[in-house]
Amino acid sequence: MEVTRTLAKFIVNHRRADIPASVRHEAARSLLNWVGCAVGGSRHETVENALAALAPFSGPGEATLLGRGDRLDIMLAALMNGITSHTFDFDDTHLRTVIHPSGPVASAILALAERQPVTGEDFLHAFILGVEAECRIGSAVYPEHYDVGWHITGTAGVFGAAAAAGRLLGLSEQQMVWALGIAATQSSGLREMFGTMCKPFHPGNAARNGLLAALLAQRDFTSSNQGIEAKRGFGNVLSTAFKPGEITDRLGETWEIAINTYKPFACGIVEHPAIDGCIQLRNEHGLKAEDIDGIALKCHPLVLELTGKKAPQVGLEGKFSVYHSCAVAVMHGAAGEAQYSDAAVRDPVVVALRDKVSAAVEPGLHEDQVRVSIRLKNGKVLEKFIEHAVGSKDRPMSDADLEAKFRGLADGILSKPEGDRLIQSCWNVAGLKDAGEVARLAVPSAGGRKRSGARA
Amino acid sequence: MEVTRTLAKFIVNHRRADIPASVRHEAARSLLNWVGCAVGGSRHETVENALAALAPFSGPGEATLLGRGDRLDIMLAALMNGITSHTFDFDDTHLRTVIHPSGPVASAILALAERQPVTGEDFLHAFILGVEAECRIGSAVYPEHYDVGWHITGTAGVFGAAAAAGRLLGLSEQQMVWALGIAATQSSGLREMFGTMCKPFHPGNAARNGLLAALLAQRDFTSSNQGIEAKRGFGNVLSTAFKPGEITDRLGETWEIAINTYKPFACGIVEHPAIDGCIQLRNEHGLKAEDIDGIALKCHPLVLELTGKKAPQVGLEGKFSVYHSCAVAVMHGAAGEAQYSDAAVRDPVVVALRDKVSAAVEPGLHEDQVRVSIRLKNGKVLEKFIEHAVGSKDRPMSDADLEAKFRGLADGILSKPEGDRLIQSCWNVAGLKDAGEVARLAVPSAGGRKRSGARA
Repeated sequence: MEVTRTLAKFIVNHRRADIPASVRHEAARSLLNWVGCAVGGSRHETVENALAALAPFSGPGEATLLGRGDRLDIMLAALMNGITSHTFDFDDTHLRTVIHPSGPVASAILALAERQPVTGEDFLHAFILGVEAECRIGSAVYPEHYDVGWHITGTAGVFGAAAAAGRLLGLSEQQMVWALGIAATQSSGLREMFGTMCKPFHPGNAARNGLLAALLAQRDFTSSNQGIEAKRGFGNVLSTAFKPGEITDRLGETWEIAINTYKPFACGIVEHPAIDGCIQLRNEHGLKAEDIDGIALKCHPLVLELTGKKAPQVGLEGKFSVYHSCAVAVMHGAAGEAQYSDAAVRDPVVVALRDKVSAAVEPGLHEDQVRVSIRLKNGKVLEKFIEHAVGSKDRPMSDADLEAKFRGLADGILSKPEGDRLIQSCWNVAGLKDAGEVARLAVPSAGGRKRSGARA
Repeated sequence: MEVTRTLAKFIVNHRRADIPASVRHEAARSLLNWVGCAVGGSRHETVENALAALAPFSGPGEATLLGRGDRLDIMLAALMNGITSHTFDFDDTHLRTVIHPSGPVASAILALAERQPVTGEDFLHAFILGVEAECRIGSAVYPEHYDVGWHITGTAGVFGAAAAAGRLLGLSEQQMVWALGIAATQSSGLREMFGTMCKPFHPGNAARNGLLAALLAQRDFTSSNQGIEAKRGFGNVLSTAFKPGEITDRLGETWEIAINTYKPFACGIVEHPAIDGCIQLRNEHGLKAEDIDGIALKCHPLVLELTGKKAPQVGLEGKFSVYHSCAVAVMHGAAGEAQYSDAAVRDPVVVALRDKVSAAVEPGLHEDQVRVSIRLKNGKVLEKFIEHAVGSKDRPMSDADLEAKFRGLADGILSKPEGDRLIQSCWNVAGLKDAGEVARLAVPSAGGRKRSGARA
């Protein structure tokens, strides 16, 4: 079975007209959500540090850093937009693989679309194909690959970026085979980095390296023809349970982006059912921190494995603490970026409530389920079973929810009219003559907004 | 046990004066050999293709592409010099791990030394420390990591580049911990790529990404504090047999670069005993291709595993064919670059002789041993047992051998006086006020030599 070649053929030859309208709309939703996250994250210390380190080495400033306007070479722009868009851990999630699919793909091709003419139609098509490659390759190694410690958004993302960029570069089938191979041999990213600046680095690095792979392949830089499926290729080296059929079965009949989901909360997806349950109980019973004697969770094992930090010290760590998340959910009825600031994590009232949260695994619960039990000081016990968290595929955010989330993220960076124009460009991306317009609209007008000192 | 921090402390605090003179001399030998390989490989199609793809995105031209003179940004120069230096598969080998140690480390820090003032003493010191980090980390996962399919020059090389570049950037202990973590989360490179342009891409990519890691850490871009040893860190994710003691035991008492070796033949090290045996029999008996009825090898399993290509079609594949290598060794008494051209691989006389070579595993032989048996058409059988191949640690190339190898590689690119000056700069690197001089001396004078059309 020629896995790499089959996938390459599909990416190179697929016809835009064969994408269903519902899939195209979901892609626009993904784009809107991704742009919002990138704009919102663009002022974070993670971004400032990376930009300070790397801007001095930028090549021609052909592409835009969203939310800021810095002009960078396309590979550095791909890296930086990938970082900004995942900095808040607020971007999209392909729940079957826990890949955050848009970051690696959109970061790579939006930068490319500022260098060469790309219509919105072609951009959207390449975006969908890139996400397809990325999520199918991820599915072929998930869960074993993830369980052992790979950050799958990085390891699979590089293929998505290479595929989408390669499509826009007009690679031949053989060149696409090489691009996927060059991506395979750069596949990297460790879960050990969760809670540090390296987590958002992973989708950025996947975008940068996937774009590099496509550019090299365009000049006939060769790789193996079986980079994905060979005995010592990606699937067998980075996994002990490689399922090649996940990549090739029913290609073009199903679409992975159609099952994409968006987070209402600015933290790891596995915590969302617990946060949802806490917010619902808070709102139903008008709870306050001082009423609470204890909060007990029964959850899927991944909740503790991924978000089991008992005593986070900084905002980024708070995102990996289900204890902190439940505390702020009960106190504030929200778990947005404001609830994951350094100050929020150190707030003594939050710390005191956090210490009252306990969590235990209940066998048989799936990842989207949780039992929340809140014991009040008056002896009363409130219970809530969450079957599907808000934001999941079964309880999706509406288009209006996504716009509201976008506005919250862009607030203080883009003016209201700027934000509205950018939202419209995402909804109407397929109608754009030049997809690069999305990037240019994501730049605040000079002077009007708070901006950092980086190059404009 | 804090592996990452222990290593970081060592790299940051080590005193130059504590390096023995013999180790410094071996480092100069490594540098000379590396520069020769980089200059020699600089005209290869692999290099032309990569340069054509990536030069348009170069930032400030602060660093030199050896052998050509193109000015590139330091990360692109690190990538390109890493590629050129491994293109002929003729660079150095740390036999305990089969890492090619100089490429990732020297490519990163020579580029850096052209951007900021670095004395030859400091350069040599950082080079030795980088190779130490790289080879110790490789030793901690070898052989299981390599056996499963990782190209260890890529996966371990990124740490060496980060360590050496970080030392020259003056990173604090904590920043060095981060640099090693950022390296860990970029660690990549698959053996499946052997025989394609991606093999030399690996040390280049390790250099590029290790330099990136050090630059990011310098600006306080954070990573895990246990990037190497954590449950989901490098050692346990990219290996199932992680031995942390290989990294930390006797740090500063032993030196990995002291056991570095250099290839007399332009192909994979595992073939060298067989080539050595064939050349010895040829020279002792005045053999010609038409005399030979058959050549039978008894060898270590890695010979067949790594170089078992029966019918190579292009020069690069020839390097991974012990059959081809033995054929040219008998015919030409040599296995240099000329014997691995596309034409050499397609030569009908070579093909006919190649088809008469057979190889089988003999249990108990170590990697440096081989039994060669040549059956002549006249019925006579010639035998040779190789205990240690020429170029191995037990039969090392002399300084004069290394100079001769360098001149062979530089021939047609640098003039004789240019080559002599470059050789002297490598031997005397510790005396240079500015280590960047090595790079500048590796550029042919304008007009005098054959050059490609790339940017000067």
